[in-house]
Amino acid sequence: MADKPQVIRDTDDEARKLARILLRGARSASLAVLEAESGHPSVSRALLGIDIDGVPVILVSALSSHTTALLADPRASLLTGETGKGDPLAHPRLTLQCTAARVERGTADHDRIRQRFVRRHPKSKLYVDFPDFAFFRLSPVKASLNGGFGRAYLLDGDEFIIHSAAAAEIAEREDGAIRHMNKDHREAATTYAHRYCGAARTGWRISGIDSAGLDLALQDQLKRLEFDQELESFQGLVPKLKNLLL
Amino acid sequence: MADKPQVIRDTDDEARKLARILLRGARSASLAVLEAESGHPSVSRALLGIDIDGVPVILVSALSSHTTALLADPRASLLTGETGKGDPLAHPRLTLQCTAARVERGTADHDRIRQRFVRRHPKSKLYVDFPDFAFFRLSPVKASLNGGFGRAYLLDGDEFIIHSAAAAEIAEREDGAIRHMNKDHREAATTYAHRYCGAARTGWRISGIDSAGLDLALQDQLKRLEFDQELESFQGLVPKLKNLLL
Repeated sequence: MADKPQVIRDTDDEARKLARILLRGARSASLAVLEAESGHPSVSRALLGIDIDGVPVILVSALSSHTTALLADPRASLLTGETGKGDPLAHPRLTLQCTAARVERGTADHDRIRQRFVRRHPKSKLYVDFPDFAFFRLSPVKASLNGGFGRAYLLDGDEFIIHSAAAAEIAEREDGAIRHMNKDHREAATTYAHRYCGAARTGWRISGIDSAGLDLALQDQLKRLEFDQELESFQGLVPKLKNLLL
Repeated sequence: MADKPQVIRDTDDEARKLARILLRGARSASLAVLEAESGHPSVSRALLGIDIDGVPVILVSALSSHTTALLADPRASLLTGETGKGDPLAHPRLTLQCTAARVERGTADHDRIRQRFVRRHPKSKLYVDFPDFAFFRLSPVKASLNGGFGRAYLLDGDEFIIHSAAAAEIAEREDGAIRHMNKDHREAATTYAHRYCGAARTGWRISGIDSAGLDLALQDQLKRLEFDQELESFQGLVPKLKNLLL
């Protein structure tokens, strides 16, 4: 069946939230690029991270065809949202069109992205520092959300950007905040995962904090909890985390 | 991590078989096209069928952006192979580059493709005959197989084509053969699924037969059994099906 039904619905807050969760909660994505020279589309699988401003990031080898393609033409597209039981088209998914830019090593951006990526994908520690691996930021241009049959929405790229003035401070203090929560408030992440993300099982941990929400991890699983409103300051984080437990 | 490790291995029969199973056993695929006018890559999800000659097919609405894109530029790419538990990059997947051609209604090709597609995706019966829906055949040009870390292979598009002279006759008699097997030899499909496809549970049914193998279905699950050699004639089918039970 078509990926876009006839009628595009008006994009409301619920659709925006679902679109952000589909992107920010994805462990991997289908990545489409334009093959160098031929310009032929090519789609493969990549691990996905999210930078502190909401921009998705990928980690790729310089030897891969992705990298050659993105350096020749930075236009790319990501598909997130996994299939599961039942009709593959009944599961919500997001198509994002984006523009890729390589992240240079030795920059603050690289350090921050690396730290967040490794926390999200612990096994990537084995190769993230290989000299031929590089991060690309994939800045969102526009998106289409398919929330299941007859539920199609269009979104601007800007809907995926976290604009909070607190982003930099939260990024700087993120690691300490996560360690504190996972050590001194061990049950909190499981409560969040159960209450807000429909998760089961215990043992959840916080794997990421940004101004717009939390990433929750349990082994192979990743869940995204979106705050109702972006944090305006780092000081707002503790009350937010407490309120979510009430 | 990169989709293609440094070293491309020599393509052997095992890699060919895995590549074909990843394509022919897929219920859905990530479909990358070039957006009309802009030429920007765009990746979305589509149900996948396989024509009698091994060519993958999709069913899309004329109102979808896929269709507009493919009519403007027939170059497309498919990604098949699902993620599961553990590292998303540890699961084998196939990137296929292909050229799309719309299948005209009222032709023998359309009737055959429609019948096979509906058998593979029973719910598509609800919309397959809507006037704004159309099938496209996506003829393979080339492919890259990633069998998991360090196991990358390149394949020609022709490796996915079923060349058997028996294809037409098997297509014509496929429906009757499937009915017969599923009615009079009910346990056979479950035996095939367990023995050759690593499947569990009972109640499997044959959902497709072609010169190169069998499609086996159980509710949402689809498994592909590849024959060691393509059938040369329809008469070879019964001995083949019996031998697989020995």
